[in-house]
Amino acid sequence: MKFVIDMMGGDNGVKATISGTKEFIKRHKDVELFLVGNLDDLSEFKNMPNITLVESKSVLKMDVDPLSALKDKDSSLMVAIKTYLDNKCDALISAGSTGALLSASIFKIKRIEGITRPCLITSFPTVKKNKKFVVCDLGANNSNTKEELVQFAIMGSIYYSIVYHAVNPSVYLLSNGTEEEKGSPLNKEAYPLLKECKSINFKGNIEGRDPLFGDIDVLVTDGYTGNIFLKSVEGTAKAMSRMIKEAFKKNILTMIGYLFSKSGVNEIKERMDYKNVGGALLMGVNGVVIKAHGSSDTKSFLSALENGYKLVSVNIVEKFKEELSK
Amino acid sequence: MKFVIDMMGGDNGVKATISGTKEFIKRHKDVELFLVGNLDDLSEFKNMPNITLVESKSVLKMDVDPLSALKDKDSSLMVAIKTYLDNKCDALISAGSTGALLSASIFKIKRIEGITRPCLITSFPTVKKNKKFVVCDLGANNSNTKEELVQFAIMGSIYYSIVYHAVNPSVYLLSNGTEEEKGSPLNKEAYPLLKECKSINFKGNIEGRDPLFGDIDVLVTDGYTGNIFLKSVEGTAKAMSRMIKEAFKKNILTMIGYLFSKSGVNEIKERMDYKNVGGALLMGVNGVVIKAHGSSDTKSFLSALENGYKLVSVNIVEKFKEELSK
Repeated sequence: MKFVIDMMGGDNGVKATISGTKEFIKRHKDVELFLVGNLDDLSEFKNMPNITLVESKSVLKMDVDPLSALKDKDSSLMVAIKTYLDNKCDALISAGSTGALLSASIFKIKRIEGITRPCLITSFPTVKKNKKFVVCDLGANNSNTKEELVQFAIMGSIYYSIVYHAVNPSVYLLSNGTEEEKGSPLNKEAYPLLKECKSINFKGNIEGRDPLFGDIDVLVTDGYTGNIFLKSVEGTAKAMSRMIKEAFKKNILTMIGYLFSKSGVNEIKERMDYKNVGGALLMGVNGVVIKAHGSSDTKSFLSALENGYKLVSVNIVEKFKEELSK
Repeated sequence: MKFVIDMMGGDNGVKATISGTKEFIKRHKDVELFLVGNLDDLSEFKNMPNITLVESKSVLKMDVDPLSALKDKDSSLMVAIKTYLDNKCDALISAGSTGALLSASIFKIKRIEGITRPCLITSFPTVKKNKKFVVCDLGANNSNTKEELVQFAIMGSIYYSIVYHAVNPSVYLLSNGTEEEKGSPLNKEAYPLLKECKSINFKGNIEGRDPLFGDIDVLVTDGYTGNIFLKSVEGTAKAMSRMIKEAFKKNILTMIGYLFSKSGVNEIKERMDYKNVGGALLMGVNGVVIKAHGSSDTKSFLSALENGYKLVSVNIVEKFKEELSK
């Protein structure tokens, strides 16, 4: 397995990517790594087995416009893309700008035939311990058409089937009500197309409050709304974790309570910690391209690498193409 | 103070509204109530002081289309609206269909001069104990224009100032990134208008993960996205509360831990319980019209009534008009 890692992208720069990568190396001796970045920053990886350092001279800003990004060939992202292609790698991971990653992937790695717009997809935890659901698009796109929503539904459905070995996963459209006639103008246009689409098991609309209860498999949404959903869920989980932590500090009794209950409570905090979510696959491009969280720390960058490892292991891209060709 | 209550609207019908109303009566002897509904269902209120029962013969379905709703003059909502107008009441509360409540309010109670589209607005809890922020629009509208977003920002700002006695509250636009150029096509159009608007203190874009940390006052969004935000936050808070409850049941130690820590933990659950949120004001119509949660139970219906009480007490509509005329 060969991975390219953009070590420079993301709000926290090399600090998070280096520690995350080191932990990943410990766990997976079988992966050959190409680490792209400032060579001085990466010197501790020098002479390590299975690691090639690749120099890049600049770093794209998080708010770079996608077209300028494509022109900056010395940036860590563009060098990573070139390294990926030159070495026929299996996965590329970056915590840098979503827009730049999307356009560079589309122009250089190319889309899978038939896919108009790739989408960002990842798994979310639920109240049921071993049950997850996937959401797509999480924000690769800023606005979408009804046809694109149908493609997202198909991609989400195939992703869920491959990753969770599920047959005929249930697909729901994120909306402001459960009734068929509810939704944004876009939703209303997409609904009949989703209903007619024979390659998915479309179940109708769902409101934002329900997916976390573990009864659905795939949540489809345009990229803008999906991004709002992702960040609202993430922020609320983080806010509640912080509030619970403070609740245990209230007085001596609650502190004692924490000592007794921490095994259970920490398990929940861990499960709902979006640092464990593992980055999102840019599905629809012809390779495993993982967008790690922009503000990745060690834990979340490691999760993104682990997610890449898992998706390459299940051979997601080839299986996806097979399914599409049916 | 005179309140009209639509006792029939909402998924749980009279069950929730009766118990919520009874509790409200205990707390506020000074409010005269007009209870609209099936008289048999409401018989326990008969002969109570300060209460007038008003008969309605039908109940609008939650998914009724707004124009049919207007025609059904015997429905509890339409009778409630008429009662409100005939008796010059101070507030109207309903847990029924949002669309029906919106159109009936616009056609019968009318908008405040200058307001194109009313919005639903309410307060959200944050990690900071005594700090809240308000969100508008929570879903009165399905799609909006840039000018409407500016009106929502002004309404939110005035609401926050009146309810929390604040000067120059900070206003943020809900978006998929913090940078100025981020956002849906609508956001990008609205941003410069918000920036130019002199009657608000516009601070820029904010992502869905940040408002709950207590550093903002007013969150502006179109009604569709606002509804997704509301329900995602609500659902995540509910899911985490359930997970925490289960975490304490894990083993005998965690159960003991709960006994010690429950005062702190229950306080958090209570604070983040959206049943306490209290319904949303339909701001922009010429009266205090409160939309209670569609699936209201006793607690949430009571909160909606309490919210109405508070908003009438601060004289929100008259103060709003004064501010607008400046």
